[in-house]
Amino acid sequence: MKPKLKLVDGSIIAPRGFRASGVFCDIKRLGTGKGSQKGRKRDLALIVSERPATVAGMFTTNQVCAAPVKVCAARMKRGQAQVVVVNSGNANACTGRQGMADALTMVRFTEQALNLPAGLALVGSTGRIGVTMPMDHVRAGIIEAATLLGDRPEHGLQAAEAIMTSDTKPKQIAVEFKLGGRTVRIGGICKGAGMIQPGMSATGARPAALPHAGLHSTMLCFITTDAAIAAPALQAALREAVAHSFNRITVDGDMSTNDTVLVLANGLAKNVECGVRSADFKKFQAALNHVCLELAKLIVRDGEGVHRVVTVRVNGAKNLQEADAAARAVANSALVKTSWHGGDPNWGRIIDAIGYSPATVVEEKVDIGYRSANRRKTLWSLRRGQPTRATFKELCLAVAPKEFELHINLNLGQASAVMYAADLTEAYVDYNKGDVTDPTTLGG
Amino acid sequence: MKPKLKLVDGSIIAPRGFRASGVFCDIKRLGTGKGSQKGRKRDLALIVSERPATVAGMFTTNQVCAAPVKVCAARMKRGQAQVVVVNSGNANACTGRQGMADALTMVRFTEQALNLPAGLALVGSTGRIGVTMPMDHVRAGIIEAATLLGDRPEHGLQAAEAIMTSDTKPKQIAVEFKLGGRTVRIGGICKGAGMIQPGMSATGARPAALPHAGLHSTMLCFITTDAAIAAPALQAALREAVAHSFNRITVDGDMSTNDTVLVLANGLAKNVECGVRSADFKKFQAALNHVCLELAKLIVRDGEGVHRVVTVRVNGAKNLQEADAAARAVANSALVKTSWHGGDPNWGRIIDAIGYSPATVVEEKVDIGYRSANRRKTLWSLRRGQPTRATFKELCLAVAPKEFELHINLNLGQASAVMYAADLTEAYVDYNKGDVTDPTTLGG
Repeated sequence: MKPKLKLVDGSIIAPRGFRASGVFCDIKRLGTGKGSQKGRKRDLALIVSERPATVAGMFTTNQVCAAPVKVCAARMKRGQAQVVVVNSGNANACTGRQGMADALTMVRFTEQALNLPAGLALVGSTGRIGVTMPMDHVRAGIIEAATLLGDRPEHGLQAAEAIMTSDTKPKQIAVEFKLGGRTVRIGGICKGAGMIQPGMSATGARPAALPHAGLHSTMLCFITTDAAIAAPALQAALREAVAHSFNRITVDGDMSTNDTVLVLANGLAKNVECGVRSADFKKFQAALNHVCLELAKLIVRDGEGVHRVVTVRVNGAKNLQEADAAARAVANSALVKTSWHGGDPNWGRIIDAIGYSPATVVEEKVDIGYRSANRRKTLWSLRRGQPTRATFKELCLAVAPKEFELHINLNLGQASAVMYAADLTEAYVDYNKGDVTDPTTLGG
Repeated sequence: MKPKLKLVDGSIIAPRGFRASGVFCDIKRLGTGKGSQKGRKRDLALIVSERPATVAGMFTTNQVCAAPVKVCAARMKRGQAQVVVVNSGNANACTGRQGMADALTMVRFTEQALNLPAGLALVGSTGRIGVTMPMDHVRAGIIEAATLLGDRPEHGLQAAEAIMTSDTKPKQIAVEFKLGGRTVRIGGICKGAGMIQPGMSATGARPAALPHAGLHSTMLCFITTDAAIAAPALQAALREAVAHSFNRITVDGDMSTNDTVLVLANGLAKNVECGVRSADFKKFQAALNHVCLELAKLIVRDGEGVHRVVTVRVNGAKNLQEADAAARAVANSALVKTSWHGGDPNWGRIIDAIGYSPATVVEEKVDIGYRSANRRKTLWSLRRGQPTRATFKELCLAVAPKEFELHINLNLGQASAVMYAADLTEAYVDYNKGDVTDPTTLGG
């Protein structure tokens, strides 16, 4: 059912009828006391559809969630939106009543600047927690961004740059495929870096099955499409796509107060509107899955200080929750992550981590192995709890690539889970300890 | 009810009738290929009582547990032991049937070397996981250690050194107090460093209430006392003491396959035997609590790469499990731990961590503050979810000491929990990534 996807340029402006901009309004530089323009970074983005779009969203399940998340979650009921305003440099989290007032000012001011009816703007923020928004800068930024909107690839890129915090590069993708005989596009931008282990739900409320272990610098993702799709179908597709992408990544195990994924679908491709039961829905789902997974992997690869990316696959668990728990225990173990950094095929730390996870584990049944991209076969280091004949040198080679897969089979049942995880490096520690004498070095 | 405790020399040999030794048998140096004697480290210890002692134990709840843990847990039923043999350099974990055979050989060979009846020896191991024990070295070590037993402080110290792995210093304590008119002593040695977040139970089985989040280089603790105490009372006292000490520490959140605490009580103080309901029991409990907590804190202070130690106190939680969950989320958050390392009073990361923990949290009710040892008052950074007037500089000063307390009040109920936690440093990462070209640098 997976449609043939063609990569195209332009990320969020690739679908028909979307414009974007990303501007400098000095939210990131506040408090530095540095007058020079050098090192100035874009920090406010607008994403606008030429007509009201169907909208779906997924939000952090952190009980301490930021004002922009609350505003978006409340506005999801309407099922429509036309513009998203996003700033970096300040998370507007733990900012109390003033924070809520500021988030509401951001959406209302954006609606006014674009002459839109009230209620059609959404908002995202990322940056340090607990600092009140510099609203003068934000207002000036929105006005400028509104005048600079455009639909060329550089406009999408500027928006992608404007939502970055500790990211070292902008993250974007756009794909084109056929849906009911029409050409449809989906584009997206995202940011991540640290405080990354999202556990998002549609309402921000925490379903029992969601991971509680947690994410920190926030991940934000904004997706546009010109597909015509009903709101319930769009929400269902996004929930499914996020479950297999953003909710399966971890950089440092900390879940942010601000994690947000939004999709706007403006219908300008003029395909027959997809409902959940239509044949086209599965195609749309497959394309959205691809966009979300590629963006999610870009977040892990560009995580703070990340040198290696490891896909942790757990098979043979008793049930899905146990498979998930085992994969997360491995993906978030400080000792496993430092061994990945060192290129040490230390399966002892891996079996230790699954052993203390909530998953049922029987030592004598566990298989642990490695597979790199250029190999067809898994190199097993442990089979049924017994070390194999693979030599230390062979295992070292298997974990030497910048990306590899870790295969764990508990051999107790049929359930599987995957996590896209990062190593833990000195660079991560150095970045996040910051320097209190220079507040510009302090992360979220 | 807390008795007056006097610190005395000699750790495990301070109580009457105990002897100890710690010898070199090159378990730690195997595989290095280095012929020189330089850097040789003690790696096998014996602790012997002159008569059979009442015994109690607490063991890792990791489902993947090492052979020595299984041997000890099985031998607890007897309620008596006379000798403990401990090696460092090899954990004898994930070593299958050979590992069990080796652990049993260790206890039997020790009993024979000391001319003891069968069944009175216990065993502990710590070091790399998944490598078969070098039994020739172990046997030679046991024979030598048996000839070098002694009851002077240096014998206790040598045993404390012989159980070290990545520890930078031996850890020991001994106290003296009055029990039923008699002078009683309790002494202990322990080791830790990394893979440290014990969750121990009396059987090694996992009670529902125990933390699943986890520990890795293993913590081992061996306690001796000349008190006369019934086996059930000793086990009850140890369970309580461990619950408030070793089970409340974390260095890196990884729970080891080998965590073990053993107490031997030989009764030579000739006090009236303590039962659980005796008045003396509370005194013994208080003294044992003190010994365990002091040893547990030594483990955190000497954790791998640790620069700062933080006591995380959560108050006002809905119930004990939630208090524990909130304290562990903060104590194990990579972002909170790196901010401690940097001396950054980043309460945003703290409220983020409690927000994603399983504990119920209402942002508008949360208090977060700091107290250092030389202050009477808590300096609050957040009250009822609102930043206080404390300046960034004042907060930086509060988190600058090598040890401080973090106070969190959820203001939702009456339950409290404490965790003794460590910062996350470049040195931790550097140590644990090791160097695969030099296997001697690879940790557990």
